[in-house]
Amino acid sequence: MDNAALLAKIEALEAAVALTKTINAEVFYWWCTALMVAIHAGFLAYEMGASRAKNALASGLKNLLAFAFLVPTFYFFGWWIYLAFPTGFTVSDAAAAGLPWSESMGPNLGDNASGIFWAAFTLFAATTASIMSGAVIERIRMSAFTILAILLGGFVWILGASWGWHPNGWLTSQWGLHDVGAAGCVHTIAGFFTLGVLINLGPRIGRFTSDGKVVHIAGHNMPMSLIGLMLIVMGFFGFLGGCIIYNGGTWMTIYNTPATLSAFAFNTLMGVAGGMIGAYVVTRDPFWMMSGALIGVISSAPGLDVYHPALAFLISFVGGLAIPKIADFILERLKIDDAVGAVAVHGFGGVWGLVAAGIFAAGYPNVEGPAVSFLGQFMSMLVFVVLGFVPGYLASYALKALGVLRVAPAAEIAGLDIAEVPVKAYPEATIPAYGTSVMSPAE
Amino acid sequence: MDNAALLAKIEALEAAVALTKTINAEVFYWWCTALMVAIHAGFLAYEMGASRAKNALASGLKNLLAFAFLVPTFYFFGWWIYLAFPTGFTVSDAAAAGLPWSESMGPNLGDNASGIFWAAFTLFAATTASIMSGAVIERIRMSAFTILAILLGGFVWILGASWGWHPNGWLTSQWGLHDVGAAGCVHTIAGFFTLGVLINLGPRIGRFTSDGKVVHIAGHNMPMSLIGLMLIVMGFFGFLGGCIIYNGGTWMTIYNTPATLSAFAFNTLMGVAGGMIGAYVVTRDPFWMMSGALIGVISSAPGLDVYHPALAFLISFVGGLAIPKIADFILERLKIDDAVGAVAVHGFGGVWGLVAAGIFAAGYPNVEGPAVSFLGQFMSMLVFVVLGFVPGYLASYALKALGVLRVAPAAEIAGLDIAEVPVKAYPEATIPAYGTSVMSPAE
Amino acid sequence: MDNAALLAKIEALEAAVALTKTINAEVFYWWCTALMVAIHAGFLAYEMGASRAKNALASGLKNLLAFAFLVPTFYFFGWWIYLAFPTGFTVSDAAAAGLPWSESMGPNLGDNASGIFWAAFTLFAATTASIMSGAVIERIRMSAFTILAILLGGFVWILGASWGWHPNGWLTSQWGLHDVGAAGCVHTIAGFFTLGVLINLGPRIGRFTSDGKVVHIAGHNMPMSLIGLMLIVMGFFGFLGGCIIYNGGTWMTIYNTPATLSAFAFNTLMGVAGGMIGAYVVTRDPFWMMSGALIGVISSAPGLDVYHPALAFLISFVGGLAIPKIADFILERLKIDDAVGAVAVHGFGGVWGLVAAGIFAAGYPNVEGPAVSFLGQFMSMLVFVVLGFVPGYLASYALKALGVLRVAPAAEIAGLDIAEVPVKAYPEATIPAYGTSVMSPAE
Repeated sequence: MDNAALLAKIEALEAAVALTKTINAEVFYWWCTALMVAIHAGFLAYEMGASRAKNALASGLKNLLAFAFLVPTFYFFGWWIYLAFPTGFTVSDAAAAGLPWSESMGPNLGDNASGIFWAAFTLFAATTASIMSGAVIERIRMSAFTILAILLGGFVWILGASWGWHPNGWLTSQWGLHDVGAAGCVHTIAGFFTLGVLINLGPRIGRFTSDGKVVHIAGHNMPMSLIGLMLIVMGFFGFLGGCIIYNGGTWMTIYNTPATLSAFAFNTLMGVAGGMIGAYVVTRDPFWMMSGALIGVISSAPGLDVYHPALAFLISFVGGLAIPKIADFILERLKIDDAVGAVAVHGFGGVWGLVAAGIFAAGYPNVEGPAVSFLGQFMSMLVFVVLGFVPGYLASYALKALGVLRVAPAAEIAGLDIAEVPVKAYPEATIPAYGTSVMSPAE
Repeated sequence: MDNAALLAKIEALEAAVALTKTINAEVFYWWCTALMVAIHAGFLAYEMGASRAKNALASGLKNLLAFAFLVPTFYFFGWWIYLAFPTGFTVSDAAAAGLPWSESMGPNLGDNASGIFWAAFTLFAATTASIMSGAVIERIRMSAFTILAILLGGFVWILGASWGWHPNGWLTSQWGLHDVGAAGCVHTIAGFFTLGVLINLGPRIGRFTSDGKVVHIAGHNMPMSLIGLMLIVMGFFGFLGGCIIYNGGTWMTIYNTPATLSAFAFNTLMGVAGGMIGAYVVTRDPFWMMSGALIGVISSAPGLDVYHPALAFLISFVGGLAIPKIADFILERLKIDDAVGAVAVHGFGGVWGLVAAGIFAAGYPNVEGPAVSFLGQFMSMLVFVVLGFVPGYLASYALKALGVLRVAPAAEIAGLDIAEVPVKAYPEATIPAYGTSVMSPAE
Repeated sequence: MDNAALLAKIEALEAAVALTKTINAEVFYWWCTALMVAIHAGFLAYEMGASRAKNALASGLKNLLAFAFLVPTFYFFGWWIYLAFPTGFTVSDAAAAGLPWSESMGPNLGDNASGIFWAAFTLFAATTASIMSGAVIERIRMSAFTILAILLGGFVWILGASWGWHPNGWLTSQWGLHDVGAAGCVHTIAGFFTLGVLINLGPRIGRFTSDGKVVHIAGHNMPMSLIGLMLIVMGFFGFLGGCIIYNGGTWMTIYNTPATLSAFAFNTLMGVAGGMIGAYVVTRDPFWMMSGALIGVISSAPGLDVYHPALAFLISFVGGLAIPKIADFILERLKIDDAVGAVAVHGFGGVWGLVAAGIFAAGYPNVEGPAVSFLGQFMSMLVFVVLGFVPGYLASYALKALGVLRVAPAAEIAGLDIAEVPVKAYPEATIPAYGTSVMSPAE
């Protein structure tokens, strides 16, 4: 065979190998997306279980609304925002690919990437909105929640992602931010957005006595919550898989630094275990132990690519030890009623994760911008805190001022399911005991 | 190195690349199959929750029976039927590969495809049978259900798949049918088979008053149903992944037209969201909102490869708006007691999806046969309706004539769990209240 | 183009193809790991449902403890044990790669395999510990359970895996053991370890009358158990996927014999169905039917690569028929109180699976060691039985002697949730009825 014929064969192979890589990446993010639906099944179970029976369906309905409305919002706005703002507030040229009438945003036989990346990001967006969802149960109005969820999941977090979870984001190019597992743009932003909302929303009726003592309000079905939380852990393999980029021959972080999925596997599992054990040590409570699994994932998320597994275990163990105490502080000192501890778990979990990477990954080089540093991580963390808190506070303030943030006290006491849901959770049961329960402690 | 040596290296690479593609396809359908098991976990939760507590385990047992019996049925008969009948009723030569004693139907180191395709199709078959399963709860006899499930999942739908969801199926080669996501052979057939069964099965005792008014019968655990439905949505990524063919360098639809998984990702999520929002707008009911997620998937399924995401959203939104009304019509006008709305969701969802592709994908070229057309889609839809309805009606008519279709009225009133299940769902609870409930509305 | 340039292109392609294979394997085991988390969500639901309400959270807490503690244990000890002991009790040179300070055990851009294999094995370890977990509910002390779980999942089973589920394990190289799906090292060992523990732990208070009659103790939420078991079936696709090796161009069993994932797909589904139908025939009980799904997987596991699907169905059907009877025998004759039948399902399921492969796969050649034989399978089975039973018996004997194996009778009667868990499962319900239930049969 002559050289021209050999070359033709080689070029055909090159094309086949390139196509195989393209398809492989497409398949990988397809499964990431699918597994992230488990996060939503999990949040649904977790939050319904964490509600009193009289509010169970209203809590679940919120999760469905967040999921349903985030998808088109993220299609029409979110993806464009991500592409538009890596440098701050000026629109990047690359943003044109995210406009709904762009060739990339429809079925396109020459583009095996845009749809699948959009899908994975959309599930990230829905997850971010779901983080707020559990904190505000049992008194928020459906419509207000939906507006806040769209704001958080469709706009705010994705601006943070464009800034700090993007190959050219300014937090990385200016300050060297390293946050491969999205502890900042997803968890910190969602946690502090939620804090802003909770300040305006106020505690559930009966959560504090007239002299400010805390009254325990327990969800009606703890087993359901635990199963939901374990489904979320499963789904995190989709989420964290979606945090590693596979578009050439090998893995990269979102910052174009090299990585392996093996390192993610080591540190995800060691982080989950560290957080669970830490939370167990201080609480002995299975609910906090599973919240500790989330704390563990979040605490180690920024350095999944570089941590030694034993270090990931320790960082997450510390998170698991400390964060339940922060939840107590928020409740007992600040008198803020976060029904599931989302501000502590996600907000402070994200803060700790970002700062820990500044301690333990300092000096690690970035492709764009300076190396990882404590100061860069710390200042980036503050940006995420502010970027989350301010819109959450202002939007919920406006909704409160309009009188549409919270259901009427009578509806809250009777149960939101009566006020907002046309079906009953447990129509045969004596459990929900609408309005007449003697066991529901806080009416 | 001389040219012969280079050629040898090239040929080794060609073999390696071909093998990688083969393995990649095998892996892809393995995960499709696994994710589709989530559909069955989901249907199990959904249908037990949609039953009154006295019937919960009997409802779940049905799902287990359908799954267990469909697997061997599909092994011994179903796969052969698929390969045999693309031209209508004459047996194709290719069918020999589906005979249980064929080399393809066992462990075969030279065949990395047959087993995994069979597995994915088997889960499709079990899913099809599960669609009927929810509609007939609380009065069907286990044995009758199992027979009907085997007929539907092991024979009827797969004949429809051979006709209309096959590279050479006559509905495509003659009429240009385009239904990449199996809205016809799975959903339309299952929905109308179910309608045929429900006519003979009759409503649950107490579903209608003596003057024909509808009495609401609520399932005992709506949260369980919602979680189940979200697991079904997760499983649909396995199902729809199983609808795209990956056996060479790139993706094709089942009709050998080019496609991308990215387009499937766009339109699956936008379809789910559109259906959820549509159903929410007309019902405000979380159960219908999750049924709307299914409606959304089904409505957009035929054109997942070609729709613009905004169009998929709209088609599914219309489905979500309209189909709850169709469920009301079936119940209130036709006096047919479909316990979960399966005829409307799957039957009319499939009809709408097929017709919508005739409107919005008309003119799209097929490899075999004419281009997509309204008439071709409409006539194919009628074929699926008839192919589903007639066997469902006749088989249930025969079972009714034999007196074995339905449990005795006393067993129905006492609860099927007492009659057909040796264990209790909630042995400690006052909830199930076997035979004595004052809250179960329809006894 | 000259030959040197062509060669350079070819070598670049060879590197790209090799890297693609590496990445593909990494992705495959990532999803195996993720899906195996579904096993843990499933066990959690299954065991909480199988407990009386007063013990539900204590049962679930066990599962969380097993998962959390197994991860670091397996990191620091388990993986080293696997690499160390294939020849019996002398340490292999290869074990150095499993030491926590080895380059393989941390993030390493040159090693895309160790982390992901470790992760999959860690989930195997947690699964093994979970098998014991259900049997001992409602009376074991949390701390004792955690110690036993660590012993079983972090040490005992992995020694068995090193011996019999390893390319160079002595059971294979000496006796020709063939057990591709880990029926021996996981299921048989876990089942007989559990038997050893149950002998020392003793039955729940009230399980037998004073004259030795069995009193039925039902779990409080059978639907929850059934959903959990179906999630375990889904997770088994991760587990069995993790049993096939993909590190070159094609599939191999753990013993380096060739295999296809297609054969695994055929036989997994046919095994599940056979076990379900077998158990249904003898019990009509949905709980046993789902246990039958596990029996089916286990029964066919050793020969997933070589069985004809119809044979896998039959082997698993026999398992499903026989094993519920063995559970009855263990309970009624041996007076051993295994709350979920784990000894029968996993212990005897594993025994039957290993022996069945000695009957039906006899003569199949191994790469290392003699061909598969009945005697080799039978003796290997005995090794697994002893290797499981002895440590389980001795460790639980020691814990009993120290008086820390079991909770105090008053705590058992009141419910372990009061004694060991700071939150309530169903705080609003009349269901749990701590200490006052008239329906809980065995107090």
